[in-house]
Amino acid sequence: MRHALRGQWSVGELVIRARAGDARAVGRLISLVEDASPALREVSERLTPYTGHAHIVGITGSPGVGKSTATSALVGSLRGQGQRVGVLAIDPSSPFSGGALLGDRVRMQDHATDPAVYIRSMASRGHLGGLAWATPQALRVLDAAGCDVVLIETVGVGQSEVDIAGLADTTLVLLAPGMGDGIQAAKAGILEIGDVYVVNKADRDGADQVVRDLRSVLSLGAIPGHWRAPIVKTVAQTGQGIDELAEAIAKHRESLRDTGELTVRRARRARDEVEAIAMTALRQRFGDVHGHGDLDSLAAQVARARLDPYTAADRLLDAL
Amino acid sequence: MRHALRGQWSVGELVIRARAGDARAVGRLISLVEDASPALREVSERLTPYTGHAHIVGITGSPGVGKSTATSALVGSLRGQGQRVGVLAIDPSSPFSGGALLGDRVRMQDHATDPAVYIRSMASRGHLGGLAWATPQALRVLDAAGCDVVLIETVGVGQSEVDIAGLADTTLVLLAPGMGDGIQAAKAGILEIGDVYVVNKADRDGADQVVRDLRSVLSLGAIPGHWRAPIVKTVAQTGQGIDELAEAIAKHRESLRDTGELTVRRARRARDEVEAIAMTALRQRFGDVHGHGDLDSLAAQVARARLDPYTAADRLLDAL
Repeated sequence: MRHALRGQWSVGELVIRARAGDARAVGRLISLVEDASPALREVSERLTPYTGHAHIVGITGSPGVGKSTATSALVGSLRGQGQRVGVLAIDPSSPFSGGALLGDRVRMQDHATDPAVYIRSMASRGHLGGLAWATPQALRVLDAAGCDVVLIETVGVGQSEVDIAGLADTTLVLLAPGMGDGIQAAKAGILEIGDVYVVNKADRDGADQVVRDLRSVLSLGAIPGHWRAPIVKTVAQTGQGIDELAEAIAKHRESLRDTGELTVRRARRARDEVEAIAMTALRQRFGDVHGHGDLDSLAAQVARARLDPYTAADRLLDAL
Repeated sequence: MRHALRGQWSVGELVIRARAGDARAVGRLISLVEDASPALREVSERLTPYTGHAHIVGITGSPGVGKSTATSALVGSLRGQGQRVGVLAIDPSSPFSGGALLGDRVRMQDHATDPAVYIRSMASRGHLGGLAWATPQALRVLDAAGCDVVLIETVGVGQSEVDIAGLADTTLVLLAPGMGDGIQAAKAGILEIGDVYVVNKADRDGADQVVRDLRSVLSLGAIPGHWRAPIVKTVAQTGQGIDELAEAIAKHRESLRDTGELTVRRARRARDEVEAIAMTALRQRFGDVHGHGDLDSLAAQVARARLDPYTAADRLLDAL
């Protein structure tokens, strides 16, 4: 099925324009994805043949470590190498605006007029699944549009539905001095996901201690013959260490290719994506079930302690 | 089906003992839930009739705001009122230990010998779904065991799979001065979930500014006639403001009952739980599909850009 879109361009034309470097067409395709437009499926089909080139870099870390500043600095460094760069910022939604609070993308304005940089923010609204399924699609748009590197970053804290690390080829974990004691980093559960560690604000007191703590914790998990996550010190505000960071990312990219790990990671990612799409379709079917097997009436019985949730789930599946 | 357990007690006996205040039986039941034991279903069935009494209080906030200290202080205050209290601490797993890093539960040791306080930590390991489904079951154990209040807290930062707010009747959002500028709180996406806001470390510089910022942001979303989330100033370390916090929680509990919102929230929670159990069962079936519709071979084609993920999901569902 081919969808006629508001405005003059079909999905096919948008894809051609996006591949020719038309930023508006790229933005339009991401909007189609984000709005769960009926054209979503066609967008996905048409883009797929052009994907697989971009290196996806996830940027994670607690609020306050300087993720936005580091992202912007990294864009500058990659642009200096002549690379095309995409940036996807995932934002928690606000109940008040209904959309994303995005006051501080000011730093990104350095790159806003560069035609070889696409910057896009997406709201991560809702609940399980939320926009999580849209994020890989948006990455696919930026990939097909010819980006060499796509940086993906969450803005804010907390229970983000989007597991950045699961989407990335290379995951950066940012830390900074003064963000709590050493054990805080370990408790954060981020030490299993980093391919490259960044100690940002390295001009501040305590930076060397963070590096030492991190090194000692990482050494516990080191496996001989495997990629050993480097620790890069940066001051993103001034650009110090950012070229070294870009180099560390490039090295990890090479290692992923040489070892075949890239294929493994991408297959795992595709598996998650296909599963998520299938699960979303199934969840819609749950909503369509009526009568006694209906999710809402089963849930009401569970809430009143009349039925245990396992038996309720059995009945739901039986009704499917 | 009734499972014979290692050791001498059946699930039925464990439930009877747990209801009689036997802490070991409570712990055993939570372990059965956490380990996804085959007895999980029976545990759930047998506990269900005794559930619905406990008020579930979620404690959220960035690392460093003092969640653990506040939780411990709150336990003290509730115990002072003669209430039975459960504490469930959800911890990110470590790749190194395979379990939970839980060095700092020291503060909880004040309550460790109190027979009317159950304290339990659970690892939130894994991926989508992970242990998320086990958490409501663990809450159900503590509820059936006679807790009047169950406090649920995440330890650490980041993409926790467990959406504390979704599990709680009353959600506390903790903030503290010096954790970043005002907008940081708004960006955090936590302002939509709080039923009670806590400005902890209120003896520090900037606490009043945090209260003012918070009040002005909250006023934007205030709906006349609805619960208006109060802001409570605390110094959890010294206990200052903790009784007021307990009172604010009790008031919210009353409001939930009076307005019927409690029933609405619990039905929503039950819906999520039943859906999650059904989805887990379906995900297992995906793994059982073989041949060309097999998830792994479909994912491999998607990873090599031979197939788009929507078509792959269709084939997976067809094969089901």
